[in-house]
Amino acid sequence: MQRAISEVSVLTAVGGAVESRRDQLAVEEPLEIRLAFGPAGQRDERSISITMRTPGHDAELAAGFLFGEGIVRGNRDIEAIRHCGSEAGAAGGFNVVRVELRPDLAVDLARLERHFYTTSSCGVCGKSSLDALEVTAAPLASPDQFRVAAATIHGLPKKLRETQAVFDRTGGLHAAALFDPEGHLIELREDVGRHNAVDKLIGSQLLAGRLPLSDRGMMVSGRASFELVQKAVVAGIPLLAAVGAPSSLAVELAQRFGATLLGFVRDLRFNIYCGTERIQIAENHS
Amino acid sequence: MQRAISEVSVLTAVGGAVESRRDQLAVEEPLEIRLAFGPAGQRDERSISITMRTPGHDAELAAGFLFGEGIVRGNRDIEAIRHCGSEAGAAGGFNVVRVELRPDLAVDLARLERHFYTTSSCGVCGKSSLDALEVTAAPLASPDQFRVAAATIHGLPKKLRETQAVFDRTGGLHAAALFDPEGHLIELREDVGRHNAVDKLIGSQLLAGRLPLSDRGMMVSGRASFELVQKAVVAGIPLLAAVGAPSSLAVELAQRFGATLLGFVRDLRFNIYCGTERIQIAENHS
Repeated sequence: MQRAISEVSVLTAVGGAVESRRDQLAVEEPLEIRLAFGPAGQRDERSISITMRTPGHDAELAAGFLFGEGIVRGNRDIEAIRHCGSEAGAAGGFNVVRVELRPDLAVDLARLERHFYTTSSCGVCGKSSLDALEVTAAPLASPDQFRVAAATIHGLPKKLRETQAVFDRTGGLHAAALFDPEGHLIELREDVGRHNAVDKLIGSQLLAGRLPLSDRGMMVSGRASFELVQKAVVAGIPLLAAVGAPSSLAVELAQRFGATLLGFVRDLRFNIYCGTERIQIAENHS
Repeated sequence: MQRAISEVSVLTAVGGAVESRRDQLAVEEPLEIRLAFGPAGQRDERSISITMRTPGHDAELAAGFLFGEGIVRGNRDIEAIRHCGSEAGAAGGFNVVRVELRPDLAVDLARLERHFYTTSSCGVCGKSSLDALEVTAAPLASPDQFRVAAATIHGLPKKLRETQAVFDRTGGLHAAALFDPEGHLIELREDVGRHNAVDKLIGSQLLAGRLPLSDRGMMVSGRASFELVQKAVVAGIPLLAAVGAPSSLAVELAQRFGATLLGFVRDLRFNIYCGTERIQIAENHS
């Protein structure tokens, strides 16, 4: 049993007074991801990652993480994902998952030693990071294949907030959601970590055999960083919309791959940083 | 020359129209931290971390990171920190720093393989993470030694925002600031990464020989996670105030170490999650 919310006593100070009440917190606990791989009789097992996450959808988180790192390419590479260990975390759930990979899958553990954008031999400049990434991602859907009306984008923040069940109660979670070109919210995940929310979301689609996500846009509750654009591009998502600001490298990466990047999507406004041709600016709104 | 802001062209969509204008972005680039250590004649060098950060204060970032990981204990452990490499990043700065450690410093590289809360042998539950941390931190200042008036806390968010030069222009940066018991802002750092802002802030004090920070509170612009409380406690900071929500494990960690944790510090209100005795609730405000 995994809980995403825990309750504590809290004092609220307003002006010169305090009042005591109960408050709900977003649960944060470590998750260890273990990888079992190799042919029968020679199976190996390694602990490959520990992340601070909100319990729930742990298998999706593990699958999405492994996909983003280039270890698995689809659900056929994964035989099983199970919680393991005998000791429950403070929130009552288990904090270790084991991912059983297909026995004949070649696993490049060197990829996991660091994120793959660090494998470039030069001085880790932004440009080389982009070069290193380029080999990994497939072409994105063209504007003819994926196009969204500006009015549809304006409606997304409200839908995101209405679907964020845990955020409403704790104020403490990031969200990531997939939507279709008509603006329907297809799936949403929440987590204390921005990257985890995206990994869970993409992992959910991977496990359902729905990658690449060429007919989906992704909306995130916070800012758009390099890593979030990277995760979107690797999953084949042609459009990323963020409630907050993008970073410089997020824009460069989106430009490089021809993705559409929107920022400050709120209050019936948004900025288009690149990929304008996937946004339909209505001549008449009726 | 390191730049924290870059400029791009952007289209802003409002209603059914778009307008073109220039927009300022927070710069995000990778920083590689290399460690040179060991006695003369047997010096070793390793790349130990790559983080996506906003250029600027890179030496502080490296120092704060190494301190948080338990590799260095003070500025006497560090002989020099220099940018290196011949290739400039996209923003014109260099993205590799080398930290030269004191030759006789014992370096436990195993600590760096993962964060130190993962060294526990049990199933990575929250409790064992806290146990693993306990040995690292010194006792915090008592309420007699460090106490802040509620009215002083109410004034912090405004001071933070006024001092956030880059955030004002980009909307894209996290901030972390140190303040004294009277509410004076002592130092502030900004970064696209929340942890980086805190590492830069604590690193600045380490390099100046001002650790532990037993007479300082820390205010952060976002949420309070386990890792931010951990960084504060290891630096000896008795009070952490966050504009956003804390996570469950952040509260548990602060309780365990007797730290004061405040959340939702905004709009002349705040929540006290633990360590109430360091907050002075005024009987009369005059």
